[in-house]
Amino acid sequence: MKNLIIASTSTIHGSGYLEYILDELTLFFKDTEEILFIPYARPSGISHEDYTAIVQKAFDKINIKANGIQTFENPIEAVKNAKGIFVGGGNTFVLTTMLYKNNLIEILKLAVENGTPYLGTSAGSNICGLTIKTTNDMPIIYPPSFDALKFVPFNINPHYLDPDTNSTHMGETRETRIKEFHKFNTPPVIGLREGSWLRVEGESILLKGHLSARIFEANKTAYEVESDTELSALK
Amino acid sequence: MKNLIIASTSTIHGSGYLEYILDELTLFFKDTEEILFIPYARPSGISHEDYTAIVQKAFDKINIKANGIQTFENPIEAVKNAKGIFVGGGNTFVLTTMLYKNNLIEILKLAVENGTPYLGTSAGSNICGLTIKTTNDMPIIYPPSFDALKFVPFNINPHYLDPDTNSTHMGETRETRIKEFHKFNTPPVIGLREGSWLRVEGESILLKGHLSARIFEANKTAYEVESDTELSALK
Repeated sequence: MKNLIIASTSTIHGSGYLEYILDELTLFFKDTEEILFIPYARPSGISHEDYTAIVQKAFDKINIKANGIQTFENPIEAVKNAKGIFVGGGNTFVLTTMLYKNNLIEILKLAVENGTPYLGTSAGSNICGLTIKTTNDMPIIYPPSFDALKFVPFNINPHYLDPDTNSTHMGETRETRIKEFHKFNTPPVIGLREGSWLRVEGESILLKGHLSARIFEANKTAYEVESDTELSALK
Repeated sequence: MKNLIIASTSTIHGSGYLEYILDELTLFFKDTEEILFIPYARPSGISHEDYTAIVQKAFDKINIKANGIQTFENPIEAVKNAKGIFVGGGNTFVLTTMLYKNNLIEILKLAVENGTPYLGTSAGSNICGLTIKTTNDMPIIYPPSFDALKFVPFNINPHYLDPDTNSTHMGETRETRIKEFHKFNTPPVIGLREGSWLRVEGESILLKGHLSARIFEANKTAYEVESDTELSALK
């Protein structure tokens, strides 16, 4: 049975790394004392080691050991044997490139199909959708494909941001960008605000956190869904 | 002799399409009464025809006919015969994909090398750099490559936006994104604010418009350059 937390962000304003979601993670990872951490997205380009140290500091609070995938000789075996997986945020293009390069796409799919709990934040959530075509990140590396892990039958837009009505900047708003996506692609997109996450259990996909989320479907007006809404029909 | 205007944006706040730069364009296109317009970037996914109509309306004011490339049977011949070229803004991934698909990369390079005046705005400016890896756009289409036209020996970040110090949003600032780019790539990046443009004449690359621009070089602190600064040494 699939078992995922797909979170918009690792960190909400004025709070520590993963702090807002730690109680949830205690329950989520209750059957294991160690998880596999995949630091490939390298936020601000930090090293895998430095990133793992930041993550370990947060997981110390719930007595979980986070083993960085870079410490394993064989990353495929590391995924296969993991009792829990966390893919952290950073740059989605860097993350996707590394997953393809290390042949981890199919083995991650298999692990999640077999029920290994998977936590994603930001870039680590982006790759849970059909493609990475709705990432906000800068394309600093050319990945072999934009196809993602397809754990949910739609696309994710993490860190969803409402238009700033006071702005004089002429760059596109997030909503405009997602509408552009729908001129060339059909899958729905869920705009997940910071502090929101999707809780996937088997066929169920529930929106969690305090905020509403914004749903974009091709040829439809965008609309809001409240927390605890079941989203499994969205495809 | 190369002859380009590489503009951050087509439109500044409170002003019409291309209005802020029309006087400059009168001089720039003084030797021709018609130009080739390449609408491939399709802002908000509008059609090539609708985009060309918007552009024609602006060029009407300086008595220039803008011929949409979609009206030519052979786009390669259209570029070859053009007396001036304008590549408009929209989505850089859509634009790049179409240029590759229609085999226009090499012929555009040749035209610009031979002195055909080239105007780019936003996405049409992004592709003037080495790669499209510093675009702000959403990757809604997977292009055959991120390599761009390389008219200047660095990368462009159009619509450059200073960090909003009041924001509680945890998504990356533009500066953070460009610093991430430099963890994986070495070329300099010029952050062009809206209303700024680069004027390329032969080997000279001058910053124009009222604002300063922000220069990012690998392993260096970012710095500002004032209008009229010569940037040909930046590589």
